[in-house]
Amino acid sequence: MDQVSLTLAEVTDLATRALMANGCNEANAAAVARNMTAAERDGCKSHGLFRVPGYVKSLRAGKIDGQAMPVVTHTGPCVVTVEGHGGLAPLAQEMGRQPLIEAARAQGMAALAIRRTHHYAALWPETEPLAEAGLVAMAFVNAPPYVAPAGGTKPFFGTNPMAFAWPRADGGAMVWDQASSMMARGEIQIAKRDGHDLPPGAGIDKDGNPTTDPAAVLEGAQLPFGGYKGGAIALMVDLLCGPLLGEVSSVEAGAADNRDGGPATGGELILAIDPAAFGGTDAIARGERLFTAMLEQEGVRLPGDRRHAARAQTPVGGIEIPKSLADTIHDLIG
Amino acid sequence: MDQVSLTLAEVTDLATRALMANGCNEANAAAVARNMTAAERDGCKSHGLFRVPGYVKSLRAGKIDGQAMPVVTHTGPCVVTVEGHGGLAPLAQEMGRQPLIEAARAQGMAALAIRRTHHYAALWPETEPLAEAGLVAMAFVNAPPYVAPAGGTKPFFGTNPMAFAWPRADGGAMVWDQASSMMARGEIQIAKRDGHDLPPGAGIDKDGNPTTDPAAVLEGAQLPFGGYKGGAIALMVDLLCGPLLGEVSSVEAGAADNRDGGPATGGELILAIDPAAFGGTDAIARGERLFTAMLEQEGVRLPGDRRHAARAQTPVGGIEIPKSLADTIHDLIG
Repeated sequence: MDQVSLTLAEVTDLATRALMANGCNEANAAAVARNMTAAERDGCKSHGLFRVPGYVKSLRAGKIDGQAMPVVTHTGPCVVTVEGHGGLAPLAQEMGRQPLIEAARAQGMAALAIRRTHHYAALWPETEPLAEAGLVAMAFVNAPPYVAPAGGTKPFFGTNPMAFAWPRADGGAMVWDQASSMMARGEIQIAKRDGHDLPPGAGIDKDGNPTTDPAAVLEGAQLPFGGYKGGAIALMVDLLCGPLLGEVSSVEAGAADNRDGGPATGGELILAIDPAAFGGTDAIARGERLFTAMLEQEGVRLPGDRRHAARAQTPVGGIEIPKSLADTIHDLIG
Repeated sequence: MDQVSLTLAEVTDLATRALMANGCNEANAAAVARNMTAAERDGCKSHGLFRVPGYVKSLRAGKIDGQAMPVVTHTGPCVVTVEGHGGLAPLAQEMGRQPLIEAARAQGMAALAIRRTHHYAALWPETEPLAEAGLVAMAFVNAPPYVAPAGGTKPFFGTNPMAFAWPRADGGAMVWDQASSMMARGEIQIAKRDGHDLPPGAGIDKDGNPTTDPAAVLEGAQLPFGGYKGGAIALMVDLLCGPLLGEVSSVEAGAADNRDGGPATGGELILAIDPAAFGGTDAIARGERLFTAMLEQEGVRLPGDRRHAARAQTPVGGIEIPKSLADTIHDLIG
């Protein structure tokens, strides 16, 4: 497949132009472009420029309001709420971040409840800055139904990812971010595009039969990771992002969506915990001891290692995307 | 195997007498017996009277202080801390419960940080009452190392369970409670006792080879559920219960433990979230809609269904334990 090389600055520029040419104001376009550039920088291709056509489809359809200005309020001493007004999640996340950090430091713990935004990205970009600010963070987001519940055969849950971030002694963060499904939706879409089979257990076809064909899984249902235990995580994520926030469940998000392939509207929950209110001053040192001991075993890595390795390289070496994707994005800019 | 029938009142009585005959005061014995009776009532054999010999071993060894009186303090506006002083987790949990509920209702969210207790039970008994009080709850506890990290071959994490509880419209709770390992430790111990094989993927022998022999897994290492994703959950649980609370990690708990088979000392984290501070008044109704839609799929059940079915039966029909276990407990009473 023909590839095109881009610097990270070119990634930002390309994403911003594509979004602004299709209805985004500068604040929304810049927030999404920052998110997308971080994904490309960290080698997360399925959340990088790959997402531009989906965003543009939904902006053109009027499903996403690219001009929306999120409104931040406090709905409890340790609850910050962002009303997204049908806009894009990255701007709402950025506007809620500092209030969340301040509330967590003041109260010991706080939550950021984001409503009525369109989330189409990874979860580590919004949890990593919290850990870099010294907080422990979790994030949850649901999505239209792609994943069968344990024992079932029809899509019910979104891939409903969850992320966890822990502050490191060097000011960085250990972050994991994983779908409740065995595979992320974007990974399956990329496997289909590139003609690769899926590993066994990733999904079932529309008749409920196991299959490794990505096209058949996209028409059928993905499966939770680890059987019913991953299904329990998917259910928790759905309850936390839908009902808890007065928002839609995966099934309701799907029913309300125009199915244009772009992100549906919905809720996101982010929790931030200040170690200072819990174990005193040595939480981070204790965490480092744990990581050091864990890495003594051969073959063991910390979550996020691959992202950090890419991050050390791409600011200098740039990134590559398929020429077909670059052409598509240029067409969308017009 | 010969079985003995007991009423739930007899379970409580037997547990209380065994604990009080081995160093527990009445408050501690009663709290543990309530927990154990709830497990037998709900058909969770591996957390019922099966646990008595392990508790007694550690009480006799002086590892657990059966007279300890937990001390409850507030270390942040929404953080309740219980110092357990080397006693048993159930009394610490019960003493922290009401302060946690009040803090969550006042602040929108709160945490209960339990330190220096010995946890040897399930997690649903401490999360279910929070959901019955109308709160969303999560709980995490770590344990001495039994589980290899993803990619590794040696025990590093405890089975590190996590629980989630959601309030139901009828005043009850939907609760799931699952180990980060493919199987709970108690299930493997019971498989060994009863001569059953384990399912593939549950663990490896001491040389790192996959095995279905429960004795070999108990000497080797258990494996996380769902591969590296379950391993990420185990890591999160370890960080939340150890470093965050100024407490020991799984590995440190193991190193400090006398390995008598009873529970090691460590931390437990419980989070409680008040839906009223988030989505307004319809969170529970939205949750019910989600459950109803989920159960429309044939073959799908809600987590905890088996426990609720047992709970409807055992108060009338009683429970059974192996005669050998009953004999052992009677011997421990002396």
